[in-house]
Amino acid sequence: MYRPEIKVLDCTIRDGGLINEHLFEDKFVRAVYQALSASGIDYIEIGYKASTKYFSPDKFGKAKFCSEDFIRKMIEGIESKAKISTMVDIGRVEPEDILPKKDSVIDMMRIACYVKDVDKAIALVNHCADKGYETTVNIMAVSTALMPDLEEALSQLSLCPLKAVYIVDSYGALFSEQIHFFVEKYAGYLKPKGIEVGIHCHNNQQLAFANTIEAIRKGANFLDATVYGIGRAAGNCPLELLLSFLKNPKFRLDPILDVIQKEFIPLRKEIEWGYLIPDMITGVLNQHPRAAIEYRAGKVKKSFGEFYLGLRNDAVI
Amino acid sequence: MYRPEIKVLDCTIRDGGLINEHLFEDKFVRAVYQALSASGIDYIEIGYKASTKYFSPDKFGKAKFCSEDFIRKMIEGIESKAKISTMVDIGRVEPEDILPKKDSVIDMMRIACYVKDVDKAIALVNHCADKGYETTVNIMAVSTALMPDLEEALSQLSLCPLKAVYIVDSYGALFSEQIHFFVEKYAGYLKPKGIEVGIHCHNNQQLAFANTIEAIRKGANFLDATVYGIGRAAGNCPLELLLSFLKNPKFRLDPILDVIQKEFIPLRKEIEWGYLIPDMITGVLNQHPRAAIEYRAGKVKKSFGEFYLGLRNDAVI
Repeated sequence: MYRPEIKVLDCTIRDGGLINEHLFEDKFVRAVYQALSASGIDYIEIGYKASTKYFSPDKFGKAKFCSEDFIRKMIEGIESKAKISTMVDIGRVEPEDILPKKDSVIDMMRIACYVKDVDKAIALVNHCADKGYETTVNIMAVSTALMPDLEEALSQLSLCPLKAVYIVDSYGALFSEQIHFFVEKYAGYLKPKGIEVGIHCHNNQQLAFANTIEAIRKGANFLDATVYGIGRAAGNCPLELLLSFLKNPKFRLDPILDVIQKEFIPLRKEIEWGYLIPDMITGVLNQHPRAAIEYRAGKVKKSFGEFYLGLRNDAVI
Repeated sequence: MYRPEIKVLDCTIRDGGLINEHLFEDKFVRAVYQALSASGIDYIEIGYKASTKYFSPDKFGKAKFCSEDFIRKMIEGIESKAKISTMVDIGRVEPEDILPKKDSVIDMMRIACYVKDVDKAIALVNHCADKGYETTVNIMAVSTALMPDLEEALSQLSLCPLKAVYIVDSYGALFSEQIHFFVEKYAGYLKPKGIEVGIHCHNNQQLAFANTIEAIRKGANFLDATVYGIGRAAGNCPLELLLSFLKNPKFRLDPILDVIQKEFIPLRKEIEWGYLIPDMITGVLNQHPRAAIEYRAGKVKKSFGEFYLGLRNDAVI
C-alpha cells in the first residue's frame, strides 16, 4: 500500500517565511520543528541559506540566513530523526557561507533556479556536494519553461551529484495531465541515473494536493508540503492532507493537527495565505503572482472581474 | 478543446443554504442568479422542493420549499438562458407539491437518495417525468455504497426517464483513481441508454475541483459547482475554477469573480465554510460530517489530534 522510497519534505518555515520576511518567533519555529519530528517527516526545511551581503538582517528574520547558531537553537533538545535542509537561491549566497558538512547540522542544500540559470545551479550543486551535502535542484516556474530548454537542463542535471530534481509549479497553473507529462519527462532523464523526481505545488487553483498525488502516481518520490498549506499567497500542498493520503505507518498525523490548532489557526488571523481570488486569477492565467500581490496590497483599483480581464488580455497579446 | 455536451449546474443557493437554513436575503439570491445568468451557466439550482408538512416555514427560508411565487420573484426581470432546477429529497415532498411543468418555471427536478432508497427515488423520478420535468438522481455518499447494491441501482436507473445520474461524494473522501472507477462504472450502465454521468464533489480534502476534472476526463457531462465553493462544511467545487478550466467560449468568468467580491467575501465573514480541519478529518476517514459539525459547534472537548484518533479508531473497530 505504500512506497518506502517516498520522502516527505516540510518547508513550512522556509516557504511560510516568504509571507512575513521570515520573522516567525523562535517559539513558533520550535513548535513546528517538534510537531514535524513527532510526525516522522523525512526532511525539515528551516529557511534559506543567504548571505548578509545581499540581504539586511535588520529587515529579514534569521531563517533568511540560517546560521549554524540559529538552527542549533531552534532544534536544541527536541528529539528528531528528520534531516535538515535549507534552500539556496543562485546569486544570493557566497561560497564561504557554506561550511563543510562536518561542521554543520544541515544535511541537504536545495538549489532553486529558473531553467535559464541551470548552469549556475550546477556550479552551486557541485560546490555543496564537494562540501559533503545532499543536494537537489528545484526548477521554478516550470509551467512557462520552453521544452527544448527544459530537456537540455534535465540532460545536464542527470550528470550531477543530486538526490532529486523538482518540478516546481510556482504559478499554481498545472493540471493533472500536465503533471503526468512533467513527471514522465523528468523521470526519463533522471531515474536511470538514480536521481529522484521531486514535486512542489502551489495552491492557486486548489490543486496542490491533487497534483502532488498525481505526481506520486507517476513516480515522484520527493514531496514538498507545508503545515496547513502555509506559503506565499495561495500557499502549498497541505502536509496534513498528504500524510493522511500516504499509507506509510511511520507517519503520524495527530501532531500536525495539534500544531495547526495551537499555532496556525491563530497565525492565520494575523497573516494571510490560502485560496484568494487575485492569486486564483494569476494561477489560471499561468502568470507570476506579482500582479495578485499588488492587487491584495490595494494598489489595483479594479474589480476582480476587471482585474481578470485585464491580465487575460495582456496574456493573449 | 471543449466538449459541447458538458452542462454546468450551479447549486450555490441550494447547497449554500444548508449552512443557514436557507435564510439568504432575496437580494443575495437575485445577485447570484444574475451573475450566473451572465456567465452562461446551463442550470441554476434555487433550492429544495420540500413540503411544509415536513418542515416549518418559520424555521427555514423560502428556498427550502421553492414555491412558484418565490422562484418567480427571484428571477423576475433578469435576462437568463439558464434552466432552473430544484432538489427533492425522497420522503420530504408530497406529490401535489409538484405542479405540472406547464404551470412551473422549474425545468429540472433532481432527486437525492442513498443507494438503499433507489426504488423510492425511481417512483419520484417517474412522477416528475410524467408531469413534464427533466430529472436526475443524485446518489449520495457513494463512497460508502456496497458495490452489488450500486450496480443493481445503476441497472434499474438505466431504464428510467433520466437526464443524468450523479456520483455524489458526500463525505469528500474520494481520490482520482476512485473517481475514475465510479465514472466508468456509471457510464457502463447509463451511456448506452443515453443517460449522462453527473459529478458532485465536496471539498473536505481540497479535491472537489480536481475530482471534477478527473470525472470530466472520464466522460462525466453534468458538473455541479458553487460560487466560491460555498456549501455545508467544506463546501463544493468552486464554480470560478471550473469555468476557467472549461474551454467553452459560451462561459464568462468575470461576472462570477465580481459577485464573489461583492457578495461572498462579505458573507464568508458571517457564515463559515471551506477548508476546516474537523471536516478534513471526517473526509480523510470517509465519514459523515456530523462529528465535524458537532466539533465546530463546541460540543467536543478534544484537541484536533485527539478528535482524529478517536474517530479513526472507531472507524477501524
